[in-house]
Amino acid sequence: MGVTTPAGFRAAGLAIGIKDGSVPDLAVVSTDDGRPVNAAGVFTSNLAAAAPVQVSRAHLATTGGRAAAVVLNSGNANAATGETGRRDARRMAELTAAGLGCAPEEVLVCSTGLIGFYLPAQCLETGIPAAVGALASSEEAGVAAARAIMTTDTRMKTTDVDGGGFRIGGMAKGAAMLAPNMATMLAVLTTDAAVEAGDLAAALGRAVAGSFNEMTLDGATSTNDTVLVLASGRAGPAPLVRLEEALGQACEDLSAQMAADAEGGTRVATIRVTGARSQAEAAAGARKVAESQLVQCSLHGGDPYWGRIVSELGSAGIGFDIDRVSVAYGGHVVCRAGVAAEHDRAAVSAHLQGVKVEVSADLGLGPGAARIVTRDLTADYILENERTS
Amino acid sequence: MGVTTPAGFRAAGLAIGIKDGSVPDLAVVSTDDGRPVNAAGVFTSNLAAAAPVQVSRAHLATTGGRAAAVVLNSGNANAATGETGRRDARRMAELTAAGLGCAPEEVLVCSTGLIGFYLPAQCLETGIPAAVGALASSEEAGVAAARAIMTTDTRMKTTDVDGGGFRIGGMAKGAAMLAPNMATMLAVLTTDAAVEAGDLAAALGRAVAGSFNEMTLDGATSTNDTVLVLASGRAGPAPLVRLEEALGQACEDLSAQMAADAEGGTRVATIRVTGARSQAEAAAGARKVAESQLVQCSLHGGDPYWGRIVSELGSAGIGFDIDRVSVAYGGHVVCRAGVAAEHDRAAVSAHLQGVKVEVSADLGLGPGAARIVTRDLTADYILENERTS
Repeated sequence: MGVTTPAGFRAAGLAIGIKDGSVPDLAVVSTDDGRPVNAAGVFTSNLAAAAPVQVSRAHLATTGGRAAAVVLNSGNANAATGETGRRDARRMAELTAAGLGCAPEEVLVCSTGLIGFYLPAQCLETGIPAAVGALASSEEAGVAAARAIMTTDTRMKTTDVDGGGFRIGGMAKGAAMLAPNMATMLAVLTTDAAVEAGDLAAALGRAVAGSFNEMTLDGATSTNDTVLVLASGRAGPAPLVRLEEALGQACEDLSAQMAADAEGGTRVATIRVTGARSQAEAAAGARKVAESQLVQCSLHGGDPYWGRIVSELGSAGIGFDIDRVSVAYGGHVVCRAGVAAEHDRAAVSAHLQGVKVEVSADLGLGPGAARIVTRDLTADYILENERTS
Repeated sequence: MGVTTPAGFRAAGLAIGIKDGSVPDLAVVSTDDGRPVNAAGVFTSNLAAAAPVQVSRAHLATTGGRAAAVVLNSGNANAATGETGRRDARRMAELTAAGLGCAPEEVLVCSTGLIGFYLPAQCLETGIPAAVGALASSEEAGVAAARAIMTTDTRMKTTDVDGGGFRIGGMAKGAAMLAPNMATMLAVLTTDAAVEAGDLAAALGRAVAGSFNEMTLDGATSTNDTVLVLASGRAGPAPLVRLEEALGQACEDLSAQMAADAEGGTRVATIRVTGARSQAEAAAGARKVAESQLVQCSLHGGDPYWGRIVSELGSAGIGFDIDRVSVAYGGHVVCRAGVAAEHDRAAVSAHLQGVKVEVSADLGLGPGAARIVTRDLTADYILENERTS
């Protein structure tokens, strides 16, 4: 299940003491023979990128897109930890490589948890060899790995996609993750398709753009956000277009699970902006609406207050003419040409009380369209985030 | 008190039925003889600017910076109301002008309340003449006007500044107003200093930049935000530098009252960013931190989680080098050179439990400095904003 579904991969997840008690906090995903395969990654654009992000980027650059394993920990982001943090991240790769018999540069590293704390080095020295020793290609092993990377997630997140002749598996963690307020999101994908490293990187980039990026992975990203893919090649070559489609499907599945698990959220809302002067302006407008605390409050209350949508669009720094704007909830137009429109109030109200809400705005200015997913703002979200300890 | 403190002004505030029941909802501020004096305004940059903003801008342009009165209503923003809204706003000016005996273009108009609803025209036809009839230069009249523009404000907001030889009075409304989540903020200032219209506009612009703009009035502004000033000249010419200083003081006083009255907030936090490559980058960084829901949650919990500050700065789109960053709470440095710094935990904790919190970040890159005021995120804020009715 998840990362162990495609042929050629093993996984493990255990508790090594980074978190308190016996909560799983370390995962390893590796090829079944410990030899490197083609790999690619998409990383946070945050300039405060955590040590594991810096190390993984460097490793992929050194190998030209090859990796034998990914080692991941939860409970500590190893971010804002300076040279000590980079040394610890490299040590995680070394320990994994030593167990597998590969080069340290062939191991990628991910961390998630609190920022600003050094990793407990002793846990790693004993824990990583134990995890490498526990690697297995079973379903259970895939599940164990997915569980070990959870932080505030309430549910484990895995995906399995049958590409027709090849398979894609994946695991992810992430919640409360909607820009600009996400905690870290991590995802590791595996496939048994044979694909060149460059093609794999391009396909992953496009898959991420159409899924995770429509929630989080751009301007406002956390210090640790990472999406990785390893391709074992065991199923032989796959048509690139099919591979990209399947990767996109896996990423969309995982991102939908994350949105549904947003901390404290009770509704998931898809904000669509059409009719913008450009795709970039549509995306900026959709993001401005999605990030608005007032809009998120309205979503929580199920309140059809479209004035807030219009106000956010008018101050989004994009082309905007109020006389051309229309707004709809669940397809019911509530504002047309910038003023209130007659509509079926009961239908709008019923739609807004649901767990999946659709908000659409058309700017009437051009062909630009974009969508972004957000959630409502709740007291539970505040409770979950007001204290880290 | 407030707008009636300087010589040459009258005010009134009454309930005319825009809001339910007998809640005051209409204010007029005018010169005592109904003749125009020099005036200036700063308006929202929101492209969905409400009808009264459009009309007031046009009137000031027509008169070249002269006004005899301001008519303001609460309970309805007259925004996203199209041509009907513009006709209603012009009608508010006409009715006021008719009562005063001035030209309609010499009346400025402000509205605040819900977006997307037409004003109840009948209320205006009888209510505005009644308000003009009630104009008085008493303290009570100034208070009545200030009360009539309140919406979710829990406290009336007025200011009185003695400039030394001239006076400035003012009233404002605004709460929940911290970008990008403010409701409308309105402010009307009066002075008995004699000053040219051009000088008055320049002085107001600078005063607003150093006060309201450090909370709200820029990129992310509401549809109705407006700051107006009328100068009766009764106290004779004032040195421009003194006038500007006094106007700044009045604006700062009003903006501090707004911050302290933020919907549901329990703490006011001043975010200072120094060492940025430019003032603009410092402002962008400070705003990114101030608007972060996660930072606002930490402020609510009094939690010294500086990792969120660093993460927001790293994704603010500004020059950033984590190895040079330091962060302090109330002057206690908790992060130095991008990693945790030893600090007095009890002192930091005590500071973060206070009602006024200071967060400082130095980027170590240049001379750019800026500050912005925000508040903590609370369940009360959500409650207040989840339903408009």
